[in-house]
Amino acid sequence: MQARRLINNPEAVSEGTVNRLSLYSRLLALLEAEGLTVTSSKELSDRMQFTATQIRRDLACFGQFGKRGIGYQISDLKRAIDKILGVHLRRKVALVGVGNLGSALLGYRVLRDHNFEIVAAFDSDPQKWSLVINNVLIQKPEELTETVKSQQIEIGIIAVPVEGAQKALNLLVSSGIRAVLNFAPARLATPRNVQLRNVDLSIELEGLSYFLEHEV
Amino acid sequence: MQARRLINNPEAVSEGTVNRLSLYSRLLALLEAEGLTVTSSKELSDRMQFTATQIRRDLACFGQFGKRGIGYQISDLKRAIDKILGVHLRRKVALVGVGNLGSALLGYRVLRDHNFEIVAAFDSDPQKWSLVINNVLIQKPEELTETVKSQQIEIGIIAVPVEGAQKALNLLVSSGIRAVLNFAPARLATPRNVQLRNVDLSIELEGLSYFLEHEV
Repeated sequence: MQARRLINNPEAVSEGTVNRLSLYSRLLALLEAEGLTVTSSKELSDRMQFTATQIRRDLACFGQFGKRGIGYQISDLKRAIDKILGVHLRRKVALVGVGNLGSALLGYRVLRDHNFEIVAAFDSDPQKWSLVINNVLIQKPEELTETVKSQQIEIGIIAVPVEGAQKALNLLVSSGIRAVLNFAPARLATPRNVQLRNVDLSIELEGLSYFLEHEV
Repeated sequence: MQARRLINNPEAVSEGTVNRLSLYSRLLALLEAEGLTVTSSKELSDRMQFTATQIRRDLACFGQFGKRGIGYQISDLKRAIDKILGVHLRRKVALVGVGNLGSALLGYRVLRDHNFEIVAAFDSDPQKWSLVINNVLIQKPEELTETVKSQQIEIGIIAVPVEGAQKALNLLVSSGIRAVLNFAPARLATPRNVQLRNVDLSIELEGLSYFLEHEV
């Protein structure tokens, strides 16, 4: 079966599809909060920037969810999407770099709301060691490997200056972390079995610039 | 002509295409730094996660850039893309909210490297007024409208807690700002002629979670 093949072959699913699944999950939560129980790709499309065809095609990668002529059960579809994304489980996160950005991330409630929890933070500045921010103790980088293993941390966040980013990545990878979110504006060399996502805010601003340049 | 029509009708170009233009521009800068002068959609594709077809299709939205059998002149293509994105001009940015995240943004060199400059910052906390962070004076929100006009600021960044986000957006919009980057985890009501981009880090983490859930 087509859907089954793709589930077993997740690399065939594009990053765009995965990102849209997150957005569908958020919209479904909103519809549920509004008291709705059933929806359609048309209704989802009306409230998002994606076409109904796009939505149906994304979902079809993972199976058959709706019923023709009836639509989708909102709670079932949301649960299914969250399971595909693996966010039905709480994921533990290690933060490397507790400057302004790192401190902001420690206070960023959205992560916890979506089942991600920063449980450990590391900084090379001795003045920060033993400080506690939002219930998280700041530790020496030398303690990272042991903490990752003992706490079963799965995801790393790099929030250090660009000069230290590759070193931070190497430390996370050598500790067994296979999924990393990087805020440093650096192209990091990454082993094939490690998933790295770069957050580049200048790309968002360039999208706004495009709008300003072309608006009527 | 197809290309011409689309330039005059930029809403027909998807956000995905616009985001990819930013990535093409960055890769072209890198190739230029490596001493290359000519490239191809195949070579660009080999160094990115996009297919050569995707790259050609994105560029075709805006005209005819390469020569069949020869490829793209790297410096010409980069200049053309930067012009499409409107980043050949420096854009002035106003920051609303100077907590940890706002402070991090004031020190974020990447923005300046890409021709965006935060020239004014605003916070409702009187203790922060008159402070200067990275050469930017922190002002009262009441001064925003006049500053936006006198400094010809075009873009706003919202880095306030969720409770204050709609108020911050309203203030920016009433001051004439038409492009806003929002970090607060809130769905903000936005006038039709204003472009709002939301940064949601939990979506990036969900992409990593998907990878962990499905990796082989």
